[in-house]
Amino acid sequence: MTPDDDGRRACHDRLALVLGSASPGRAEILRRARLPFRVVVSDVDEEALGAEHPEATPDELALLLAQAKGRDVAERVAAEGVDVPTLVVGCDSVFELDGVAHGKPYEPEVAIERWREQSGRTGRLHTGQWAGLLTPGENGAGADAETSTCVSADVRFADVDEDTARAYVATGEPLHCAGAFTIDGAGAALVEWVDGDPNAVIGLSVAVLRVQCAELGLRFADLWDTSNLVA
Amino acid sequence: MTPDDDGRRACHDRLALVLGSASPGRAEILRRARLPFRVVVSDVDEEALGAEHPEATPDELALLLAQAKGRDVAERVAAEGVDVPTLVVGCDSVFELDGVAHGKPYEPEVAIERWREQSGRTGRLHTGQWAGLLTPGENGAGADAETSTCVSADVRFADVDEDTARAYVATGEPLHCAGAFTIDGAGAALVEWVDGDPNAVIGLSVAVLRVQCAELGLRFADLWDTSNLVA
Repeated sequence: MTPDDDGRRACHDRLALVLGSASPGRAEILRRARLPFRVVVSDVDEEALGAEHPEATPDELALLLAQAKGRDVAERVAAEGVDVPTLVVGCDSVFELDGVAHGKPYEPEVAIERWREQSGRTGRLHTGQWAGLLTPGENGAGADAETSTCVSADVRFADVDEDTARAYVATGEPLHCAGAFTIDGAGAALVEWVDGDPNAVIGLSVAVLRVQCAELGLRFADLWDTSNLVA
Repeated sequence: MTPDDDGRRACHDRLALVLGSASPGRAEILRRARLPFRVVVSDVDEEALGAEHPEATPDELALLLAQAKGRDVAERVAAEGVDVPTLVVGCDSVFELDGVAHGKPYEPEVAIERWREQSGRTGRLHTGQWAGLLTPGENGAGADAETSTCVSADVRFADVDEDTARAYVATGEPLHCAGAFTIDGAGAALVEWVDGDPNAVIGLSVAVLRVQCAELGLRFADLWDTSNLVA
């Protein structure tokens, strides 16, 4: 075996993952899914990008933002250079109720108002998910190949009174969540039903990431942490 | 205000939660839902109880096991005595495919065989959930009031090849999970869709727990950790 063959094999046996998002929920999904990763955050101006596309539907908006964030992070990682094939994932989530896109409420009073609207009703959570591959030695300005899709799920909220909504908002949790809820935190008490991939509702579909790996010619199982196998 | 009034108010302002299950997934749901709790495990013989009810459907079996575990734990906690109103929760999950109940596979080869069967198909996860209330001063032999239900959700698995199933089983994760999968771990890569409460699929529905509190005359928000409120 020549040193070149050796080098190539070493590369192909490893695959690095970069999460292009500061979301603790997305990071937790990857950790629990046993997918080692590092975080690189984009500086895409979401508000400005949304304003440039006033005609975009909520799912189109989630996809546009995910693509912009993913490509921005891929450019940053490419500029540093990569030693092994590196998969960059960019995500954005938008909540839709009555055809209107809702992002993060930020302020408690906004979150309480959202809950007045959505209590007892069904909305739709859209997660745009972009995946791009950086190959060592390509010296590209970004990903050599990319794929993206929007993953949507219906979410049915419990019919809760103002006191319960205020108690929930007081936990602080919903302030930085699209749609002012989570299904993997205190908000679990107020969400009755999901019709779709629950991880996409949290912010990143691991099942879609597996399919995106295949689309990019990668073996998803190479992302799994194999340091502690049982069989 | 008399001392008695004072004492009663102190009791009503606090509510303790006991999780009657050793499942790390259920404990993690409660932790993330900001519901402080302690764990007391039953010694109900699940196999023996199941054998006593050969006619039980998978959802009936999950409910029977949850009731038996919850009542057993409530008796243990009652025997110790309680200082504050205490809610005990007992759960059991059973996975159903083609009308057949499946528990935990335990062995890698059993888990791989399950995946050969369920890959690309839809099964149903049943979580029996029993809640009982212990009141200070009642000196009862168990819960003073109880309520229980079975929460079911459809789960659609990705169509995965043998290599991917083997790589998943090698993580060890599915061996101790009803149905040989999780949606909140490495198994997230292999589950495409859930139709129901995702937390019930993991093992405990917080939304149902909120309703069960109301049925027992309790205010669910009293269970929330209020040590770090924002508003």
